[in-house]
Amino acid sequence: MSNEKEPSERYVRGRARLGELDELQPGRVAESLKDAAPDLARYAMEFPYGDIYSRPGLDLKQREIAAVAMLSAMGGAEPQLKFHISAAMNVGLSREEVTEVVMQTVVYAGFPRALNAMNMLIEVLAERDGEK
Amino acid sequence: MSNEKEPSERYVRGRARLGELDELQPGRVAESLKDAAPDLARYAMEFPYGDIYSRPGLDLKQREIAAVAMLSAMGGAEPQLKFHISAAMNVGLSREEVTEVVMQTVVYAGFPRALNAMNMLIEVLAERDGEK
Amino acid sequence: MSNEKEPSERYVRGRARLGELDELQPGRVAESLKDAAPDLARYAMEFPYGDIYSRPGLDLKQREIAAVAMLSAMGGAEPQLKFHISAAMNVGLSREEVTEVVMQTVVYAGFPRALNAMNMLIEVLAERDGEK
Amino acid sequence: MSNEKEPSERYVRGRARLGELDELQPGRVAESLKDAAPDLARYAMEFPYGDIYSRPGLDLKQREIAAVAMLSAMGGAEPQLKFHISAAMNVGLSREEVTEVVMQTVVYAGFPRALNAMNMLIEVLAERDGEK
Amino acid sequence: MSNEKEPSERYVRGRARLGELDELQPGRVAESLKDAAPDLARYAMEFPYGDIYSRPGLDLKQREIAAVAMLSAMGGAEPQLKFHISAAMNVGLSREEVTEVVMQTVVYAGFPRALNAMNMLIEVLAERDGEK
Amino acid sequence: MSNEKEPSERYVRGRARLGELDELQPGRVAESLKDAAPDLARYAMEFPYGDIYSRPGLDLKQREIAAVAMLSAMGGAEPQLKFHISAAMNVGLSREEVTEVVMQTVVYAGFPRALNAMNMLIEVLAERDGEK
Repeated sequence: MSNEKEPSERYVRGRARLGELDELQPGRVAESLKDAAPDLARYAMEFPYGDIYSRPGLDLKQREIAAVAMLSAMGGAEPQLKFHISAAMNVGLSREEVTEVVMQTVVYAGFPRALNAMNMLIEVLAERDGEK
Repeated sequence: MSNEKEPSERYVRGRARLGELDELQPGRVAESLKDAAPDLARYAMEFPYGDIYSRPGLDLKQREIAAVAMLSAMGGAEPQLKFHISAAMNVGLSREEVTEVVMQTVVYAGFPRALNAMNMLIEVLAERDGEK
Repeated sequence: MSNEKEPSERYVRGRARLGELDELQPGRVAESLKDAAPDLARYAMEFPYGDIYSRPGLDLKQREIAAVAMLSAMGGAEPQLKFHISAAMNVGLSREEVTEVVMQTVVYAGFPRALNAMNMLIEVLAERDGEK
Repeated sequence: MSNEKEPSERYVRGRARLGELDELQPGRVAESLKDAAPDLARYAMEFPYGDIYSRPGLDLKQREIAAVAMLSAMGGAEPQLKFHISAAMNVGLSREEVTEVVMQTVVYAGFPRALNAMNMLIEVLAERDGEK
Repeated sequence: MSNEKEPSERYVRGRARLGELDELQPGRVAESLKDAAPDLARYAMEFPYGDIYSRPGLDLKQREIAAVAMLSAMGGAEPQLKFHISAAMNVGLSREEVTEVVMQTVVYAGFPRALNAMNMLIEVLAERDGEK
Repeated sequence: MSNEKEPSERYVRGRARLGELDELQPGRVAESLKDAAPDLARYAMEFPYGDIYSRPGLDLKQREIAAVAMLSAMGGAEPQLKFHISAAMNVGLSREEVTEVVMQTVVYAGFPRALNAMNMLIEVLAERDGEK
């Protein structure tokens, strides 16, 4: 299963879709898993981005509202939350919109989850401002 | 704290805001908690709806995408999830859009959370179709 | 391991301690697990009640505040939460005190966990009032 | 995406793999989601069973130990847990082995998750004994 | 909503209440969120401390037992847990009492949550001893 | 309770059982908790290893599949997950088998939990390779 020579159509579509969120991310995912679990990197392209994010019905801004909302409320997913906070802004949500999604976490998951998610947002904003 | 005669400005604003999601819901919340914890009913109007949902920055459709996303991913919040699936459609999200948000849960929280949230969606759709 | 003839000292101590919370509970636990997993019933007496609840340092009222707090915040533990809400009152916490612990859940775990825990409290109160 | 005429190779492989766990389950999954989200039923065949469960490296008994372990510890996944408790026995794990996995939950996720999972096991055993 | 000139009565009451837990904390909360989300800092004063912690029915020692219990059991709330372990001692709970609450976590949420919470306690104790 | 002179039979059995997973671990557990909560170290030997892991019905390889599965799916238990990933290999599971268990997490708990668990695996492999 892991030695398919040719990338699947789903992989190609997923890599492109993830690249719309952040053009460097497909490379980072592949690199980080290349020794231990290259197939997990492949699945991470094919299923979330090649299947789910490629569906019609929601645009990327709506999908990123949902992603930031889920990751903020779940907790324990800090690297993924930071990525999607940044991706949300890359696809056109304003800082204010992303901040409001994170703030809404307090209603459904309480203050600790909301405060921790807000700290991730603060880190992302500092990194983005530093890059300019 | 619990015997303020006059409803606060935040309460009035929250009740109105929640009424935009579902006009019967403010009455249901107050009724269900009136004996055991009337103050919790008051807080549930004042804070989530009078404070958070009354903020600018996101419209109600965006807030309901976030609410359905959080509740689907967290699990263990079935009554609240059913309410917000229904509210999401009341404020103008299409069935397809709400279904897509629920389906996206599979990426961030796995198949069981997604399947259970989809079953809540199916129940809501059946109730709404039955009411017509 | 499961066919020790004589109950251990920890078991005897735990059964007595759990009996202080609710005199019928040791029998219920043993009965419900007697076919599938009698050892789990034994562990449930020995470890939580024979070891932890038998420690000095906190009285039973303090331990039940902690138990109700943890179970309310975790979610997905409704039967256990109902038992400890009732046990909390059996060991001398007032309805108001237990209600306040449940209400505090909203701060740390959000409105859905708090509302669901409050509904468990309402069920317990109805059952207790019905028994009189 | 949802109107592919021909089932994918992954779907066919997944349906067969899931059928090894329980021959009626592929039909149940498709049926329950056929109106609201037929694509989720398709993904539930393709990804977990066509991709992950079709990988070499673990046999089905090992995979079902992992599945029962994860679902017991997570909580809030009762229908899925019941299915995998049953599937675990279908692929050759003994009642004792499945019971031990569930009991081990107490170490990592505490007594409430373990007791609730054990109750699911008891329900499954009753259903299986009733069917004979 | 965010540019109210005068702090609300709830804010003033909450700041004072939080100051009873730790006199430096109101300043820290406001400082950490002043750029990204000053309103979240305001809500964090008004709702948990101005509303909930200002209610009668439980004293601060009981409320801190509940807070430490919830945060230990939930996991993923380490900064908040450290604060409330320290606050619990500030309002008069002994080291032994706080340690017992954390230890009780093992019953309801398993060994990993309890061990991680105990490590937070150890860090807090080291910091407090270092400050003397 | 905490000043029993003689280690219990369960403690001795547990220490030996944990030593089969990693001969240095019993000492590490005792050391890390010796000041704040020595009894928790004792319980951590007696209950998980002296009671549960000493039961018949599953061998250590099966128990470690379950442990890695639970800890990967729960999240927020990184130190414990790293230990059990390593222990799993110590008792004879191959790298490939442990990797497959971690990868299966994606089905039940989603990509973030699976990716974070895989990063723990990558850290463990790097440490083990570095020790050679």
